Amino acid sequence: MSVRPIRWHEDSLKLLDQRLLPGEVTEISYDSVAAVADAIRDMVVRGAPAIGITAAFGVVIAARSRYAENPDNWWEGIEQDFRLLADARPTAINLFWAIERMRGCFDEIDGDPVEYLLAEAKAIHEEDIAANMRMGELGADLIGAGSSILTHCNAGALATGGYGTALGVIRSAVAEGKVEQVFADETRPWLQGARLTAWELLQDGIPVSLIAEGAASWLMQQGKVQWIVVGSDRIAANGDVANKIGTYQLAVSARHHGVKFMVAAPTSTVDMNVASGADIPIETRSADELLKCGDKTVAAAGASAWNPVFDVTPAALVDAIVTERGVVEKPDTEKMLAMMQNA
Amino acid sequence: MSVRPIRWHEDSLKLLDQRLLPGEVTEISYDSVAAVADAIRDMVVRGAPAIGITAAFGVVIAARSRYAENPDNWWEGIEQDFRLLADARPTAINLFWAIERMRGCFDEIDGDPVEYLLAEAKAIHEEDIAANMRMGELGADLIGAGSSILTHCNAGALATGGYGTALGVIRSAVAEGKVEQVFADETRPWLQGARLTAWELLQDGIPVSLIAEGAASWLMQQGKVQWIVVGSDRIAANGDVANKIGTYQLAVSARHHGVKFMVAAPTSTVDMNVASGADIPIETRSADELLKCGDKTVAAAGASAWNPVFDVTPAALVDAIVTERGVVEKPDTEKMLAMMQNA
Repeated sequence: MSVRPIRWHEDSLKLLDQRLLPGEVTEISYDSVAAVADAIRDMVVRGAPAIGITAAFGVVIAARSRYAENPDNWWEGIEQDFRLLADARPTAINLFWAIERMRGCFDEIDGDPVEYLLAEAKAIHEEDIAANMRMGELGADLIGAGSSILTHCNAGALATGGYGTALGVIRSAVAEGKVEQVFADETRPWLQGARLTAWELLQDGIPVSLIAEGAASWLMQQGKVQWIVVGSDRIAANGDVANKIGTYQLAVSARHHGVKFMVAAPTSTVDMNVASGADIPIETRSADELLKCGDKTVAAAGASAWNPVFDVTPAALVDAIVTERGVVEKPDTEKMLAMMQNA
Repeated sequence: MSVRPIRWHEDSLKLLDQRLLPGEVTEISYDSVAAVADAIRDMVVRGAPAIGITAAFGVVIAARSRYAENPDNWWEGIEQDFRLLADARPTAINLFWAIERMRGCFDEIDGDPVEYLLAEAKAIHEEDIAANMRMGELGADLIGAGSSILTHCNAGALATGGYGTALGVIRSAVAEGKVEQVFADETRPWLQGARLTAWELLQDGIPVSLIAEGAASWLMQQGKVQWIVVGSDRIAANGDVANKIGTYQLAVSARHHGVKFMVAAPTSTVDMNVASGADIPIETRSADELLKCGDKTVAAAGASAWNPVFDVTPAALVDAIVTERGVVEKPDTEKMLAMMQNA
């Protein structure tokens, strides 16, 4: 079984602290919605599906507190808690999706909401893992034998309920014996590739070669890679893909080199209310993330930095979007709609 | 006056230790050719023109030792010293160019070679600075008013005798009031952009915004940059350009976005003996450079890394090569030859 970044244990939410990986493997317990929102903002947990699952458990914690204070009208004021969670990070749609799904249960609850909501949050978690497994199969089917794959950031077990989206596809393709070599961008500034992707693949015995982001096009030019496989934080109705900064650059270069470009993401990442990538909010984080490496300042004193942490890859540069409901090749609005309507 | 990474002072070579910048500004003294070769290999000094100048002073030091040992036949055995220097790094042609130019003086020397060779090494150093100033003017002429410029690695005063190639162009364009904003890739793994380019531009009062390499294409897509200006470690006869890993990716993306791509390098960087970039040796350095950030290991234990430190940009993706002898637009073998023959 792959690493699990999120679990509900002894009446509280436990998150694996991804800021400390791979050096320290430590869980933190959460019992207040404010602390859960902070954990999302501070990237104790990250990755769109994992943020969604965390928010679902955050709603359980919020409802428990509200019920303890006011058993008759516990839902009053809970909108504030939702806002706290929703404001934590702007780009990943799974956060809003999970809150909406949890809110959708309220009408069916009578009395103490905790048991009902906890069951729903656990269902979201389990469905995410099942979706990953299905995407793994579907994505691996597209990959030819003897392929080498480059991935970016961490779209793995750590970014999801478990197993992973892009890394789910890679795990499945490796299991089928199709993969020659796995490369991972180190993914500055947060080094998700070097710290998280390498760590979780090595836990599963899958060797991985890290490269600097700057080496990706040279890797393609040298014919060392046939597929780019990435996850997503939000997919627009037309198939435009928001994902970790650097993804767009890979897509531009993949097209130039005839390398295939695949996005693996559950339908909870698809936002049919957003017509195109132009309407997806792109989070900019502190310049400090770039001026430092870990805790240590590396840049010259006085330098500023531009640190958008996501970018948008237009659908035209995507060869395939893989969700648990199917594969959309050369995505457009019509094909995305058909896939979403596929039960 | 810009920073000077190399000087001859009190009978020895002094190099600014670029491994420690920007935290510490420290010079190291060199009095043996083996130590000079180590300094080049270990990147106390780096940047193609700076490596060439350092090697020229290395030849002075070698000749001084050989003359002290054997005044009558001091040139015997000096080939070993040349090899030591030449083997230090394979990609930058300036290293070999400087050794050849120094060797070319031997026939004219009678008696103690030190004074003659020192004058030649100092001439190489001064000519490099003059070439930078000229390239600065020529390159800045190409840049339109209100442009923003992205540079990569450090092709500045620190990479040359002083003033810089790419940063020379930027300095001149800034002085002419043409530049809206300067962006610099942080340039993993060695962080030349964050550590060196930011430091030397800020010393001159030129503000600079750092970006992660992964953000460069998004920067272009957002229309925030009109020119990419870089240096080179070796330019082939057909105009193919070897430079720091990540340069090729910028060129691919610049073409996709209609952003202009300029290479500034002295003619000592042009290798007319190499027909195309395919024949330029590309140095691969230790995986540790990538698995660590500074002294600290950041990658998961057990991860490997592919760390080519240069790549080749085909001439077809280059809008202009600027040397001290002129500007070659849309470079090819014929135009490069004409420029080289231009005294």
